[in-house]
Amino acid sequence: MQKAKHRVVIVGAGFGGLYAAKALRRADIDLTIVDRRNFHLFQPLLYQVATGVLSPANIAAPVRSILERQRNCRTLLGEVISVDAVRRRLNLREGALEYDSLILAPGSVNSYFGNDDWEEHAPGLKTVEDATMIRARILSAFEQAELEQVPDRIRRLLTFIVVGGGPTGVELAGAIAEIANHTLRREFRTINPSDARILLVQGGERILEGYPAALAARAQRSLEKLGAEVLLGYQVVEVSERGATVRHSDNDADSLIESATVLWAAGVQAAPLSAALRQATGCELDSGGRVIVEEDCSIAGHPEIFVIGDVASHCGGGAEPLPGVAQVAMQQAAFVGRIIRDRLQGQPASGRRFRYHDKGSMATIGRASAVADLGHLQLSGMPGWLAWLFIHLMYLVAYDNRVLVLFQWCWYYLTWNRSARLITNQEVRSHPDN
Amino acid sequence: MQKAKHRVVIVGAGFGGLYAAKALRRADIDLTIVDRRNFHLFQPLLYQVATGVLSPANIAAPVRSILERQRNCRTLLGEVISVDAVRRRLNLREGALEYDSLILAPGSVNSYFGNDDWEEHAPGLKTVEDATMIRARILSAFEQAELEQVPDRIRRLLTFIVVGGGPTGVELAGAIAEIANHTLRREFRTINPSDARILLVQGGERILEGYPAALAARAQRSLEKLGAEVLLGYQVVEVSERGATVRHSDNDADSLIESATVLWAAGVQAAPLSAALRQATGCELDSGGRVIVEEDCSIAGHPEIFVIGDVASHCGGGAEPLPGVAQVAMQQAAFVGRIIRDRLQGQPASGRRFRYHDKGSMATIGRASAVADLGHLQLSGMPGWLAWLFIHLMYLVAYDNRVLVLFQWCWYYLTWNRSARLITNQEVRSHPDN
Repeated sequence: MQKAKHRVVIVGAGFGGLYAAKALRRADIDLTIVDRRNFHLFQPLLYQVATGVLSPANIAAPVRSILERQRNCRTLLGEVISVDAVRRRLNLREGALEYDSLILAPGSVNSYFGNDDWEEHAPGLKTVEDATMIRARILSAFEQAELEQVPDRIRRLLTFIVVGGGPTGVELAGAIAEIANHTLRREFRTINPSDARILLVQGGERILEGYPAALAARAQRSLEKLGAEVLLGYQVVEVSERGATVRHSDNDADSLIESATVLWAAGVQAAPLSAALRQATGCELDSGGRVIVEEDCSIAGHPEIFVIGDVASHCGGGAEPLPGVAQVAMQQAAFVGRIIRDRLQGQPASGRRFRYHDKGSMATIGRASAVADLGHLQLSGMPGWLAWLFIHLMYLVAYDNRVLVLFQWCWYYLTWNRSARLITNQEVRSHPDN
Repeated sequence: MQKAKHRVVIVGAGFGGLYAAKALRRADIDLTIVDRRNFHLFQPLLYQVATGVLSPANIAAPVRSILERQRNCRTLLGEVISVDAVRRRLNLREGALEYDSLILAPGSVNSYFGNDDWEEHAPGLKTVEDATMIRARILSAFEQAELEQVPDRIRRLLTFIVVGGGPTGVELAGAIAEIANHTLRREFRTINPSDARILLVQGGERILEGYPAALAARAQRSLEKLGAEVLLGYQVVEVSERGATVRHSDNDADSLIESATVLWAAGVQAAPLSAALRQATGCELDSGGRVIVEEDCSIAGHPEIFVIGDVASHCGGGAEPLPGVAQVAMQQAAFVGRIIRDRLQGQPASGRRFRYHDKGSMATIGRASAVADLGHLQLSGMPGWLAWLFIHLMYLVAYDNRVLVLFQWCWYYLTWNRSARLITNQEVRSHPDN
């Protein structure tokens, strides 16, 4: 038997967890990474699964396979139920797991701001299952419209509402507009798919609020050119089977927009594990359920517990909380990995402070257009799209996925054909008013 | 308004239905193809989805997209509930559809020979959902074994039983053996995936009963070389959560093989639409629920109703019913299309007789080995596999799928990496005895 090694447990195999494991690849530790899913998912491209360009496996890679060669690391498929911070133990549904250092990176889930009953009628886009379900809903709406006789029902079926004008909402609305106006153009005999209305509903005064105003304006023009309508200053006050009810910030009159397909891209909140951590340690959470962490990403009173990624509320020295993007999680992962390595070598790690280096952000609008805010450089249109394309390919962890995704993008670019247009795992939906 | 055209309705967009539509592409008719699913599925490669080499979209193509350019044809996503042969009308869940000629090609479903309760514990491989579910079960068994402490439970989790030694069973067993012995080889830290037992249970005296004995023997040797065990002469008499109980034909002693993953490849029966057709027309069904058709594929008393593919029991002039393979359905589709075209041009079509030209059959065993019985030519090993590869690529209807599938086969050939190894749409399964 060898001397017992320092045990590090990482919860979550998203960008935070996976890069934390990689940051510890040369450490002489006993490392375990636990995730409820057996794959790492490249969430930035999930909307392309939801809109039929890519298959789920193209943007996912088995965690086990990614970490196969990292001999200090074992992968477990398991679900964390609670944390026992005193005995330094995680309680999984499948058993218990002891740690000396803990890195929590469980990510985020959709937030309906207290209206959880909206979820059924307005699914959000966080998991592979969400994506294939949204894909099925979008395609089924056109299919049902082709079978329908009553004009009002056809109109409802061909109205698509995307709630939320951030990158995900913009990308989804652009992709649905392309489906209606290009991909499906010649495929129906009764309806005309380009009669579809695609509405992007945004509460604020402009879309892409995190981006420079000029880029956001260009993105809006691109969206409108694709055939989507952008409703600014509208709050969604109700979502039901009939559609979404919106209210403009200038007046109190509500209006119902009838729609069979309402999609939610308006907000996320921390994964429920943050609540379990509060219960165990008394740590504070912010309004989005995120754990308020110390400057070194640990939690107060528990220097051995680190929280990173979407579930961490880290002010990074400034007033604004950090955005819930992969870059933040990856940089925090590298930072925390370094702290753990230094501690193992007896180097004092107190007083360290995580600083986020914003490398920029980008969003695509349709087939060959994107906006990219790279700080000193702002790109839009085709140059923005090429930048977007290469950066996204680069961050796909599996080599074969890069080739498959590139081929499918080229194919789509040349033909407008979204070949992954499968309606699966879906009970046959009946019309709501039948 | 144009003069009303002859209305042809095709039910099912498998090989039979799709090729019937294509056979009628130049006819001056009003053609409708109805399917419950929005895609044509290349079933011969479904086992590669179930074992993580391919994604569902790689072997599926939207029916609408395939028939986009065929202007005489419309595609409907609908489910046929009953046939009204007197009024020449199909009742769909979504409404009614009138026809002058009807081509029924609804395919087959798994048959448990009266033991429908086995299905839950021994899923068969007919749909995309079956494939992703079987994929999840196979991968979950290894994942659960990695978490398990009790040796008996680990053994049960690492025992895989494939019931049925036809091509599907052989291909599945070979693929699972490769997963255990190659793909997962270095990925686990506690279990050794190659400890897995893969059992192919076959009631008859040899596997691949439709093939020449020498080829079947070679296939069995290939399977055994990959690490699968072939149990000949064993009937499965019970399937439960614990595993499968088998009985050898030579004695009455039953023995339970404990297994967490039992897969069913032992038989199919006609889709339920055949029963609806019997109710409507009094047509006869055979023991597998298939419709006994006339020599021209129509049914007795209804020259305007044709039944083709897996759901037709066509003796083709001989004593043996035709096999349930794509070739039969495609040839029947072309034959029936010609009859309808000839009738429209006033040519008598009575007394015609469908004859099946057997072009051979093939099955793969693992990564680079196959058996092919092409009549005058019998191939096995690598030559068999290359023949299998090119013929299967050729019959994929979408061009981009051919490229994607070829790339993924090459990738797998070079790396053993099955990259579509996702556990999706699966509730977390608990251990049966917890």
